[in-house]
Amino acid sequence: MLPDVQSRQPEISLNLTRVGAEGIRKLVRIEREDKRPVILVAEFDIFVNLPSTRKGVNLSRNFEVIDKVLEEATSRPVYNIENLCREIAIRALLSHEYATRAEISMKSEYMHPAKTPSTGVKTQEMVNILCDAYAWKENGEVNTRIMIGVEVTGITACPCAQEMIKVRSGRELENLGFSPEDIEKILRVVPVATHNQRGHATIKVETAGKYIPVIELISIAKDAMSSGTCEILKREDEYEVVKNAHLHPMFVEDSVRVMARLLAERFPELPDSATVIIRQENEESIHQHNVVGEKIATMGEIRKELGIE
Amino acid sequence: MLPDVQSRQPEISLNLTRVGAEGIRKLVRIEREDKRPVILVAEFDIFVNLPSTRKGVNLSRNFEVIDKVLEEATSRPVYNIENLCREIAIRALLSHEYATRAEISMKSEYMHPAKTPSTGVKTQEMVNILCDAYAWKENGEVNTRIMIGVEVTGITACPCAQEMIKVRSGRELENLGFSPEDIEKILRVVPVATHNQRGHATIKVETAGKYIPVIELISIAKDAMSSGTCEILKREDEYEVVKNAHLHPMFVEDSVRVMARLLAERFPELPDSATVIIRQENEESIHQHNVVGEKIATMGEIRKELGIE
Amino acid sequence: MLPDVQSRQPEISLNLTRVGAEGIRKLVRIEREDKRPVILVAEFDIFVNLPSTRKGVNLSRNFEVIDKVLEEATSRPVYNIENLCREIAIRALLSHEYATRAEISMKSEYMHPAKTPSTGVKTQEMVNILCDAYAWKENGEVNTRIMIGVEVTGITACPCAQEMIKVRSGRELENLGFSPEDIEKILRVVPVATHNQRGHATIKVETAGKYIPVIELISIAKDAMSSGTCEILKREDEYEVVKNAHLHPMFVEDSVRVMARLLAERFPELPDSATVIIRQENEESIHQHNVVGEKIATMGEIRKELGIE
Amino acid sequence: MLPDVQSRQPEISLNLTRVGAEGIRKLVRIEREDKRPVILVAEFDIFVNLPSTRKGVNLSRNFEVIDKVLEEATSRPVYNIENLCREIAIRALLSHEYATRAEISMKSEYMHPAKTPSTGVKTQEMVNILCDAYAWKENGEVNTRIMIGVEVTGITACPCAQEMIKVRSGRELENLGFSPEDIEKILRVVPVATHNQRGHATIKVETAGKYIPVIELISIAKDAMSSGTCEILKREDEYEVVKNAHLHPMFVEDSVRVMARLLAERFPELPDSATVIIRQENEESIHQHNVVGEKIATMGEIRKELGIE
Repeated sequence: MLPDVQSRQPEISLNLTRVGAEGIRKLVRIEREDKRPVILVAEFDIFVNLPSTRKGVNLSRNFEVIDKVLEEATSRPVYNIENLCREIAIRALLSHEYATRAEISMKSEYMHPAKTPSTGVKTQEMVNILCDAYAWKENGEVNTRIMIGVEVTGITACPCAQEMIKVRSGRELENLGFSPEDIEKILRVVPVATHNQRGHATIKVETAGKYIPVIELISIAKDAMSSGTCEILKREDEYEVVKNAHLHPMFVEDSVRVMARLLAERFPELPDSATVIIRQENEESIHQHNVVGEKIATMGEIRKELGIE
Repeated sequence: MLPDVQSRQPEISLNLTRVGAEGIRKLVRIEREDKRPVILVAEFDIFVNLPSTRKGVNLSRNFEVIDKVLEEATSRPVYNIENLCREIAIRALLSHEYATRAEISMKSEYMHPAKTPSTGVKTQEMVNILCDAYAWKENGEVNTRIMIGVEVTGITACPCAQEMIKVRSGRELENLGFSPEDIEKILRVVPVATHNQRGHATIKVETAGKYIPVIELISIAKDAMSSGTCEILKREDEYEVVKNAHLHPMFVEDSVRVMARLLAERFPELPDSATVIIRQENEESIHQHNVVGEKIATMGEIRKELGIE
Repeated sequence: MLPDVQSRQPEISLNLTRVGAEGIRKLVRIEREDKRPVILVAEFDIFVNLPSTRKGVNLSRNFEVIDKVLEEATSRPVYNIENLCREIAIRALLSHEYATRAEISMKSEYMHPAKTPSTGVKTQEMVNILCDAYAWKENGEVNTRIMIGVEVTGITACPCAQEMIKVRSGRELENLGFSPEDIEKILRVVPVATHNQRGHATIKVETAGKYIPVIELISIAKDAMSSGTCEILKREDEYEVVKNAHLHPMFVEDSVRVMARLLAERFPELPDSATVIIRQENEESIHQHNVVGEKIATMGEIRKELGIE
Repeated sequence: MLPDVQSRQPEISLNLTRVGAEGIRKLVRIEREDKRPVILVAEFDIFVNLPSTRKGVNLSRNFEVIDKVLEEATSRPVYNIENLCREIAIRALLSHEYATRAEISMKSEYMHPAKTPSTGVKTQEMVNILCDAYAWKENGEVNTRIMIGVEVTGITACPCAQEMIKVRSGRELENLGFSPEDIEKILRVVPVATHNQRGHATIKVETAGKYIPVIELISIAKDAMSSGTCEILKREDEYEVVKNAHLHPMFVEDSVRVMARLLAERFPELPDSATVIIRQENEESIHQHNVVGEKIATMGEIRKELGIE
């Protein structure tokens, strides 16, 4: 028999907040009833807490739990992503009899079918899917809490620079002798320059027992940037994306606020207590740094601020 | 005059948790009174909150504030790292009259002089220095909260695998006819194999107005791994490091607990309310994933658990 | 009609070595005749050369070509990875009538089924698959050249530190009164300590029209490290991996040489002209830097050096 | 005495192309005669070749060589970056008596003083400096070859999308009743929209014994993008950058060609045999992938193509 060092009394008697593994890469295949399975190459982090009376956790159990749940997901169309992660968290908790909390986090690229905006060519679009699942024991019961989310890339155009270009262009047109009415007409039809850049919109929502379709979150994230982007863009498509982006200039602040409003509008079923994390990060083309806006609040707080019942 | 789009009323009336910039790289030179200046190539993140009545923040003010404080630090020996970050946070807050909170985060490589363990050859050692500074307005006053920290690389050797190798080696020696006393003697002088790997120890401590020397945090982080490492190791040094590491096998759990105890022992002046974040991450040589242990607690909680007054 | 700016004469008349796109992520599904399809989340780079008479390339054609070939691969069991990449390179070349060279590069994680070494638990193992394909026009013909490769993670144990520990342990045992014969016996059965670490073995082989099974390259890469590793290791498995690694200590130099010999032995059908690139990178546990060994040569050169006909 | 395992005969008799270390981080301080010292946090890779008769290289010598040269550079104003790297390569070669080739590669962030384009606020600008140095023995002599380079970030605006927006805007203005002369005037003064993004220009030049000022390479790289960028931009500055970028739209192809021409014009002293590597990478705001253009040629080839003597 080999010794079980982990189960011994530690030299220093101190409980630990979390012990586990990060960066576990897995091919995930989730069967669905009437559709093609979802395929993900996902990265998992998995943790449990450790009492002060035990030297170490049994890490290999975490891996067995993940493998077991992933295997089930390939054979039975019962899981969506949040249930998959919830199940892993529950079983991780139960497999460590000394732990009272378990938490797992999943991040995965997800390729889904897309079409170019104007010419309609079929292509793939890549987004990230995020899921955090917590399980804990309380009064002999196992409770869970799930956050599901997405991270989507798009283009954002700066409202401030565009307005400055407009004002200066107006002055130049005035100098050329154009009337205020003409200038107003011209600047309504000519998309004027501004800086624009890759933006990344992130939404995470506490499910609170409701079904939050990932596809809906992707749609909200896209609608909160100046325009969607695409891996293939024929000339006609590129024109559409650029024109569209310049008709909807947005700061990171605007993107975050739009996401908050759309969440409040499209998920009336979410309870006021549900936490949401909204974030927009722009890779500024005029700087080397990135610009970030963030809102962390409950649905109730957002509804109240927006006057939505 | 150019238009000030940021100061307008937003279309959606919602306050934002934070708006700012990430990944601002700066050369930092901190003068010291009787020593050579500290040189850092640091990365800063800087944020303020935004009320619901304003479309955007004035981001360029953040950069002016950082540049101003960094410039002062190169000419006057008044700053250490935590004061530098505190000063940036305060001035960031004051430069955005509409904000009530500012937060900055700094991470930097820091090269400091080191010697090889056995042959004493002079070399450089690289650690990361971390600092978070928060400033907020409350009843007309500006309050601050500072976390200072380090991230140090070392080697960790696994206690469990070593014990298994010991048990099996004992059996093999028994089969060869060695007596229990001989076996015990042998296994006391022969460092037996185990897997070992790069480990990363991270400590962050709330300063609570006390001076927390970074050099002391580095020392604690090193003492919590099986052995320090070095960029140059002559043969004699390499022997020392490997032997030393195998005499002190440690799980991530052990490393975290040792750091907690050393913090409690070496910083009696820190108040019970001060938060500490302790983390050990090992790049497991027998796996593709990393193993992580973490303790987040107040000094008071740690002292109570350890029975330290 | 939209203007075609790319087809114009450039201001500066200079041909370009390559123009294209990097970081194109695609879900790849390759049907196989009697097995489950291979699923990859791959990243492609794709380039063509550009003559001095043309302002720009038509980048969208590259994406259409990739999508077209990937779509075919999901419906017909005709492709393996190298043929897939070869086909993309040929079509990329033909779709740019002005280009004379095309090159594509693919890198993908690949999960394949594995078992733990001792207890035989089923798990997934992750390796990287690499493929470079070149196509060029010469005398009215299209020629191609393909490199196929893998990058595999394992554990490597240092022979030098182990030998030093052995020598010193021998001296300690001598001091304890053990005879030279006893010492020799002891050090044969007790796996003595050394530093060990994550190693990454990379092999790329020019196919030269031969079929080079990726699974065979993975096997060679694994055999060239001290031991394979695994995401799940029960106690018994962990013991096996650690013991095995310490029985086969290897420098990066050893790993590269073993891979070269195994390639020469297992691929007698490869012509002498085929280029091979072999590389071992170890994430040294006693240093912050990595150690690397590399051999770039033709199969003919390797055979000659090794005296293999 | 400790055993010297590296010097033994290897089991497999095969020479290796290179053996060494990657990712060695060092604080570099280069004294200059009449200016403030240059401070770099640099990353070095260092390699030598290994004959078939030796099991391993003496890696620690590489680190001693680097430390020695860096130490000298802090005390004597004799080095520039290329001489520093050349010196390390030569000493690395000479310190391994069995090697016939040594190569080192350095990459470092370099902060240099900058001013905002319109308001003239002082700030820091970050670029990367690159240097490769090769040393080899031939007929009893040590030869060297040095490449010095930079990587600079700027903004690039797409000429194709801008032209499409212009054509369509012209049609819209025509529909509003503006005359062709008016339309032409309008589109000359109104900077029209296009997509723009962070671009990264890279130049590496073989020095061939000439002094190639890094500052001149930075200037060429900047001139080859649509506009420089800046960490601080007051409103007036931002307007300038955006307007300027839109007046100089550039494909990656244009950027590479401009860099080639500027190199040919500004370095007439470089011999025809000197190799240059020029590369432009744009982080496309309308795509998730990056677009890349590259020219690898000798100065002689570039001069001939451009008709420059």
